[in-house]
Amino acid sequence: MNDFQKHLSLFNEFLSKNVTNNQPIELYEPVSYTMNQKGKRLRPILVLIGCELFGADPASALPTALSIELMHNSTLVHDDIMDEAAIRRGQATVHKKYGLNSAVLSGDLMIFKSYNELTNQEPRHQPALFSLLSDSIIEVCIGQQLDMNFEDKAKITIAEYLDMIEKKTAALLGCSLQLGAIIGDADANDAALMNRFGRNIGKAFQIQDDLLDTYGEEAVFGKKIGGDIVQNKKTFLLVKALEKANATQTKEINKWLKSKDETAKINGIKTIFDDLKVREEAEKLMEVYQDKSLINLNLIDVERDQKAPLKELAYSLLVRQT
Amino acid sequence: MNDFQKHLSLFNEFLSKNVTNNQPIELYEPVSYTMNQKGKRLRPILVLIGCELFGADPASALPTALSIELMHNSTLVHDDIMDEAAIRRGQATVHKKYGLNSAVLSGDLMIFKSYNELTNQEPRHQPALFSLLSDSIIEVCIGQQLDMNFEDKAKITIAEYLDMIEKKTAALLGCSLQLGAIIGDADANDAALMNRFGRNIGKAFQIQDDLLDTYGEEAVFGKKIGGDIVQNKKTFLLVKALEKANATQTKEINKWLKSKDETAKINGIKTIFDDLKVREEAEKLMEVYQDKSLINLNLIDVERDQKAPLKELAYSLLVRQT
Repeated sequence: MNDFQKHLSLFNEFLSKNVTNNQPIELYEPVSYTMNQKGKRLRPILVLIGCELFGADPASALPTALSIELMHNSTLVHDDIMDEAAIRRGQATVHKKYGLNSAVLSGDLMIFKSYNELTNQEPRHQPALFSLLSDSIIEVCIGQQLDMNFEDKAKITIAEYLDMIEKKTAALLGCSLQLGAIIGDADANDAALMNRFGRNIGKAFQIQDDLLDTYGEEAVFGKKIGGDIVQNKKTFLLVKALEKANATQTKEINKWLKSKDETAKINGIKTIFDDLKVREEAEKLMEVYQDKSLINLNLIDVERDQKAPLKELAYSLLVRQT
Repeated sequence: MNDFQKHLSLFNEFLSKNVTNNQPIELYEPVSYTMNQKGKRLRPILVLIGCELFGADPASALPTALSIELMHNSTLVHDDIMDEAAIRRGQATVHKKYGLNSAVLSGDLMIFKSYNELTNQEPRHQPALFSLLSDSIIEVCIGQQLDMNFEDKAKITIAEYLDMIEKKTAALLGCSLQLGAIIGDADANDAALMNRFGRNIGKAFQIQDDLLDTYGEEAVFGKKIGGDIVQNKKTFLLVKALEKANATQTKEINKWLKSKDETAKINGIKTIFDDLKVREEAEKLMEVYQDKSLINLNLIDVERDQKAPLKELAYSLLVRQT
């Protein structure tokens, strides 16, 4: 069993003890339905690794690991309402299965339980944990609004795209590592570096997500390839393509954006992506963020060997197929 | 200017400085729209009074006062989605004015900002504040679910009704007073008594709400009298009437519950309420909770004179017409 698997089973055991079907069942069942789905458990594992890196027992950070997983899942439940998504992790979304009211209220409950978990950490750590979690989740909220705003905007710059994914995706990954570092009594400088490391990995992670949706293998990826293209989603690929396109290509892209023929649309847009080499640009930018994260990691005042698991986990995320 | 008006203007000034229209405006405007409506500001005033009672400067509790008002308003925004309510405080509800997505997301933001405000209190107070706020708002969440469950249940007992209103309404009133007491460095026993005082007042307050909806004066009350009856809401009056009714009266009530003729329904149900004297039962029970709250207040280890403003405020709530 490697380090991540150890952390994963530590976390899953803690979760199964602490997320139970209380009364009223109408409120708690959607919570356990959501929390028991097979997710990557990426954020809680980052909390535990972040804590262990500074020599503390990762088990001491379990309430915070659960807190961040509850918070992340609350955003998924509420985002699925906003995106009118029917399927998440191969199962019906909460609002489809239990109705809108249950999705709103059980999502709220997950937020409240998330904060409540932090009260199980040592009082001396709590002010820093609460402050960081609140600031980070407000960023996520702003990121979700920016993402929704993008739907109605014809022109997005790469800078706007990167700002959106930093808030919507990267902020909570950086937060997870910093929360762990706080519990591990890291000094303020190292804790902040952990956050920046996580954010850089997070941005690379999101660009990878955009790539997989268009270039992944359907059988491995687990959902239909080209979904982002069909929905005109402002991914890195589309934003970059619109930025690089000449007048003819812009006209061509705009024609496809209006098309209802899904297969032709996916192929048409992918051909333009190929012509403009936006896939290569995405891969190059992923490397930039990977390099930045490496610089952050090198600056952290901890023995080189102890950083290996974190480095390994982070980079495994960037060669993933799902 | 009396004590409450002083507290109210202190709070309103703090609110106007701290709830501003940040970017993205789509996210922040529904928050300021909601927070700037004329509400009673009951919970923040309870925080300030709770703090002052123990000799501390009420201004030191302003972040917590704002926290509780943000939290309370987040529940209103999300409850209005669940209840499909179109009007709140004489204005369009957030989901009607800005759409469902904005109501979900800006309600979430109010929750996050609520917790964030607590990080502005002294670190030594924070663990107790976070713990109490989280526990209390989870109760509110459960109360909202129980209230929704009541809609589909034919038979509710008075005990179930009282449990629901304790969670949905009274918990946050008790919480407000206890939060203030914590910041005022009250001892644990006094702080707990403040909570119980607030809960007893809160239950009386909710029964009063039920009474006003049926027996209030429309011009003063500000909304249509009889709304609860039209919607078959399981108020104290209806629950008690169903408990006391004989077979003929039960049949009569059930006939009216199905009626679409609003005026006839309101009059028909009120006649049965009169026959069963449920209004008098409600008034009697309000007095019971008022007496209980008085016992709580007497036990608090503070000079009698200093308790006068709290007593006055609490009882003014129970003779209100709106």
